[in-house]
Amino acid sequence: MPAVENGIPDIVIGRLPIYLRALTHMAQEGDKVTTSSHELGQRLGISSAQIRKDLSHFGEFGKQGTGYHIKYLIEQLRHILNLDQEWSTVIVGAGYIGHALAHYQGFQHRGFRIQRIFDNDPSVIGQDMNGLTVQHVDELSEVMENEGIQVAILAVPASAAQDITDLLVDAGVKSILSYAPINLNVPQGVWVRYNDPVVQMQRMTFYLKSEE
Amino acid sequence: MPAVENGIPDIVIGRLPIYLRALTHMAQEGDKVTTSSHELGQRLGISSAQIRKDLSHFGEFGKQGTGYHIKYLIEQLRHILNLDQEWSTVIVGAGYIGHALAHYQGFQHRGFRIQRIFDNDPSVIGQDMNGLTVQHVDELSEVMENEGIQVAILAVPASAAQDITDLLVDAGVKSILSYAPINLNVPQGVWVRYNDPVVQMQRMTFYLKSEE
Repeated sequence: MPAVENGIPDIVIGRLPIYLRALTHMAQEGDKVTTSSHELGQRLGISSAQIRKDLSHFGEFGKQGTGYHIKYLIEQLRHILNLDQEWSTVIVGAGYIGHALAHYQGFQHRGFRIQRIFDNDPSVIGQDMNGLTVQHVDELSEVMENEGIQVAILAVPASAAQDITDLLVDAGVKSILSYAPINLNVPQGVWVRYNDPVVQMQRMTFYLKSEE
Repeated sequence: MPAVENGIPDIVIGRLPIYLRALTHMAQEGDKVTTSSHELGQRLGISSAQIRKDLSHFGEFGKQGTGYHIKYLIEQLRHILNLDQEWSTVIVGAGYIGHALAHYQGFQHRGFRIQRIFDNDPSVIGQDMNGLTVQHVDELSEVMENEGIQVAILAVPASAAQDITDLLVDAGVKSILSYAPINLNVPQGVWVRYNDPVVQMQRMTFYLKSEE
């Protein structure tokens, strides 16, 4: 994954969904129409200068003195992040994690629709998961190609992760969120991000003092 | 969360668990005793210069020409990240995500032991989850204080997340991994990281072309 695209560092892109989430909460709270980089920064523990600098890559969204119009900035961020559309998404792996993801309410209204779920275990194929029927992974390629699906969530064991990734790539996937605790090889133009709770927890234990 | 502690940027700390994971895979593969920043970098899509620079904050781990001794570097990284010990961890929230976490095999041997799981829903209290009995959240404070638990995973709805966080902080928590899609307020000295799959996915859609 390149660190910079169109002159915009990926780390800046990575903060936009966080801004979007906080602005969406503000809009839901409904008690104000505008906000400032200062207020947003306080909520997020990010400096207001950082927020202004990040947003300045994409245009001029606020006015000196009046700040940002919350709903307008939400619309703009959704547009920048290609969330004007809803992305059809497949889950591969219907174990504990896949099951939790199939039931996760957080995709709705945030740009993703879980469309299909696959596994290779005969004992779960055909099961209903929150309205989706678990399909055999052998059907994955055909379904993805027919439906033009570009987004996948990988929730299979580390040992199977690279093989399934190769299958997904052949079927046209462009973006993979992987829960398998292993680094995946993908060709240029395919994006992978990793969701490994232990990596996140280990980043914090650095700062802790031992139990005894 | 400060961006820098002891002169070491948090973003550097954030890469150490990734190095540790990749080195552990190398050790498990068992076909070599040493590796190089170049080889590690290739596996991770990180430049070898970055890896050398990150590690140089903590000492001299490799030798020019012979590279890093894999098992030694694993030990050192575990020591730096305070993973010599196993951290007792509580899960709060026994819904779909908490359930998946209770069954997750990835904590073992990586520094964490899921010790307790709590919920406030009478219909799940008393249930067995992978050998743990779901306890009422009213018992949380006493258990955490008695057992000196500093690490928690928060898997409750956004609407309950701040209240439970306040409870955890009062009970002595120092590190929280939160699955609730909302920013939490914690005092200085308490660390929070957020696991929000949608934020990760939105970071990738920026780079995608629309379905049609």
